[in-house]
Amino acid sequence: MPLLDALGLDLERRPDAPLHRQLYERLIDGIAAGAIKPGEKLPSTRDLAQFLGVSRNTIMLAFEHLTAEGFLEGQSGSGTYVAREPPSKAATPAPARINPALRAAGTLDRSFACGAGFADVPATLRHMRRPVPFRSNFPAVDAFPVQVWAKLAADIYRKMSPELAGELMGEGDPQGYAPLREAIVEHVTLGRGLVCRPENVVVFAGAQHAVDLACRILLTEGETAWCEDPGYDGAYASVTAAGARPVAVPVDADGLDVAAGVARAPDARLAYVSPSKQFPLGMSLSLERRRALLDWAGRADAWILEDDYDAEFRYAGRPLPALHALDREARVIYLGTFSKTLFPGIRLGFAVVPDALVEAFVAARSVTGRYSPMLEQALVARFMSEGHFASHVRRMRKLYAQRQAHLLDALARRLGNWMTPEPTDTGMEIVARLRPGLSARRVAAAAVQEGLELMPLSALAREAEVDDLLTIGFSAFSAEQMDEGVETLRTVLLRLESTSRAP
Amino acid sequence: MPLLDALGLDLERRPDAPLHRQLYERLIDGIAAGAIKPGEKLPSTRDLAQFLGVSRNTIMLAFEHLTAEGFLEGQSGSGTYVAREPPSKAATPAPARINPALRAAGTLDRSFACGAGFADVPATLRHMRRPVPFRSNFPAVDAFPVQVWAKLAADIYRKMSPELAGELMGEGDPQGYAPLREAIVEHVTLGRGLVCRPENVVVFAGAQHAVDLACRILLTEGETAWCEDPGYDGAYASVTAAGARPVAVPVDADGLDVAAGVARAPDARLAYVSPSKQFPLGMSLSLERRRALLDWAGRADAWILEDDYDAEFRYAGRPLPALHALDREARVIYLGTFSKTLFPGIRLGFAVVPDALVEAFVAARSVTGRYSPMLEQALVARFMSEGHFASHVRRMRKLYAQRQAHLLDALARRLGNWMTPEPTDTGMEIVARLRPGLSARRVAAAAVQEGLELMPLSALAREAEVDDLLTIGFSAFSAEQMDEGVETLRTVLLRLESTSRAP
Repeated sequence: MPLLDALGLDLERRPDAPLHRQLYERLIDGIAAGAIKPGEKLPSTRDLAQFLGVSRNTIMLAFEHLTAEGFLEGQSGSGTYVAREPPSKAATPAPARINPALRAAGTLDRSFACGAGFADVPATLRHMRRPVPFRSNFPAVDAFPVQVWAKLAADIYRKMSPELAGELMGEGDPQGYAPLREAIVEHVTLGRGLVCRPENVVVFAGAQHAVDLACRILLTEGETAWCEDPGYDGAYASVTAAGARPVAVPVDADGLDVAAGVARAPDARLAYVSPSKQFPLGMSLSLERRRALLDWAGRADAWILEDDYDAEFRYAGRPLPALHALDREARVIYLGTFSKTLFPGIRLGFAVVPDALVEAFVAARSVTGRYSPMLEQALVARFMSEGHFASHVRRMRKLYAQRQAHLLDALARRLGNWMTPEPTDTGMEIVARLRPGLSARRVAAAAVQEGLELMPLSALAREAEVDDLLTIGFSAFSAEQMDEGVETLRTVLLRLESTSRAP
Repeated sequence: MPLLDALGLDLERRPDAPLHRQLYERLIDGIAAGAIKPGEKLPSTRDLAQFLGVSRNTIMLAFEHLTAEGFLEGQSGSGTYVAREPPSKAATPAPARINPALRAAGTLDRSFACGAGFADVPATLRHMRRPVPFRSNFPAVDAFPVQVWAKLAADIYRKMSPELAGELMGEGDPQGYAPLREAIVEHVTLGRGLVCRPENVVVFAGAQHAVDLACRILLTEGETAWCEDPGYDGAYASVTAAGARPVAVPVDADGLDVAAGVARAPDARLAYVSPSKQFPLGMSLSLERRRALLDWAGRADAWILEDDYDAEFRYAGRPLPALHALDREARVIYLGTFSKTLFPGIRLGFAVVPDALVEAFVAARSVTGRYSPMLEQALVARFMSEGHFASHVRRMRKLYAQRQAHLLDALARRLGNWMTPEPTDTGMEIVARLRPGLSARRVAAAAVQEGLELMPLSALAREAEVDDLLTIGFSAFSAEQMDEGVETLRTVLLRLESTSRAP
């Protein structure tokens, strides 16, 4: 029969195309090519199945799809026919018309552009790539006490009564698991000088999630928001995604230049700021600037997003308390993350939100994704309340201090000709200033060819001219890895030098 | 000294107010009240600490805050003074001006309103409350194989090499962990007739997260989107949150009334639909309607969000394949969730996205929250690839079928006077039609007083008149729980009847 000729016999088991789909496509092709005629009666599903050596279900599924789409017509009791007027085959995929603000945001935040070469990726994070020296902002995940963690997890699973299952496996609180919020309050109260209650804490899937939802809640289309320049690209992206306009505000030795912000956008609705350790330059926001920022927010009726992303790793002296601690008008939304203190893959962070905003944040958290995974929240709550969190942070603080010292020493010994690193008293990376004439972007682009990651600050700049600066992360790397990385970088720099000297 | 009198000695250790904060407030009060004068010199931190019986750090922290805020002035070498012109104390909390679309969305989606009585909560989900009979849409979390799950988790932790730690604890792929996306493809290909590749899958924190991000990406302010009436309130909320307008489209025995949708909003940009089992009415979308919907989407250049929320629990007959399987123009975004097949607290779901939208979805996923927790994704991937997922779903299908049969029997025996339940061939709850004269909203409101949850369909309706219908969930409850619930409900109905008969 012509139908069977049209089909051929070469259906094959392929993971990307189930048999029923292959059959479906053969039949459409056959109809389009005229090999199977309109009105023609098809063999029974049983005969076809036998002929093709496939299950009858496969045939029925293909027929069902084809009937649904109008290629076949079933006549009750008398079999299946090719439709008298089958639809034309030409189906074009829908063009992708998407929200312009979201599209623009996607181009601003390049953290997802994992495939691209580093030189093309002005990104804070480069996903799907293992950390290689000298990635910034990355904790020593291999020093995490996985076995302690695993024991706590096993203990929770072992005690999973129906009651507890209802709590940890059922629906959760969009504001966050209450014991975790309590542990967070203790952490930020003791560690960062905040005054807040568990009712002010909202749990998020990391700081970027909180930045994004805060922008969505607090900004309306056409409004403006201050972002630091150079600064965190995720903030620019989320302001843009909210339909608002990020205004780049310069950063100097005292941190965000509040006066410049006031001059550029006095009526901004929001300021994103990293007061403890400016990202990426590293200074802390001076007290005077903190007061000026809060004053402006009060006058302008604006909100402040305080991203306190790695203040836990403080190596020297007492840190300034968080900006939130100075905020007497409840204008600061404080953001913390477990990506650095625990590990990035955990996807947990939190916001400490003024009373007036709690309801809006919780409602929006629910609409936009309900709540964070419960078992994971319970695990972190126990990790904190049983003291593992504090001792891990303490241990990492010591380790990172050693690693920074080692890095600074290696840089001084081997790369002193090319760069002057600035020691940091907080966090996971240092900033190095290149010798005049060297471009950080070019150095980073050459280094990535040798498997090294350096972050040229110009990748995070809008108007700021910072191509003499790059960050060098130390927290995630052993002394040996850093030594090796420094030697590789030395080779890269020597080569760049000889190339640029060539006629 | 007057300062110390002003302070009093009653600082107390309270979890909600650290000592430094109490001291800070006493000093501000003292300055405001005039008990401490502008220009007055303060005792040394050492003396004050001794006098108040607190640590010197406490005093220094309070002084630091007060200096930062302008109440105190330090003079290097000569101590600390009250400022000559201290700021006025009156600080008012900022009023909460938030994005109107987000605010409106928050009132539409009431799933977070956990404290309110059920009668006030037209919500799909009611968080922070253990499931009580007869909650709809809730899996039997106590029948989940926690010990299998725990063993897989322990195995992953045990094998956590530095290499694996980099992968599972470090930065993840915003599109989703690749092995999980592969397992999802196998599941939807075999189970739901989809044709797709792992490149089309994007992992989300549950279906609502995917609905919300899809609305944000695909809708622009002022556009319209079809939502089912009665229908899932989360869809209305997310359309609204995106600044767009949800258009209620009626549902009849064949599911979404496509012609009515075309009449009401021919140029809508998006249609949210639950074709396998309309939520909450329960019918499946007829083949004719499926074709009409796809035709309209093609003509209108619109997208379709297919929420396939519980098609895995199919009790009788072969299910229609997913709408996605009929989609030849790549207009359908298919949404699946692990909230029903695993458990809600897992917060994992997925979208199968047309090629043309993948990049936009991944970029937006990254901007709005980076990626889903990696260890959890790895755990689900193993649970699926090792066959536990399929066997759990099979086991639950059998259990839920028994539970439905038990419920139907109990309803027929004990509540036949008041309601006619409609057996379902898919999912986790049935719809019951009340005897004329009974209001589902009133019945549910009376039942919640006795600790029962019934969902009156009018709570999910816009214009549809469905106050004779309510859903009764069976999946999460033992025969004993259901029997007891039915008896309680009988009492409630008898009481309602006698009240309404009273003069």
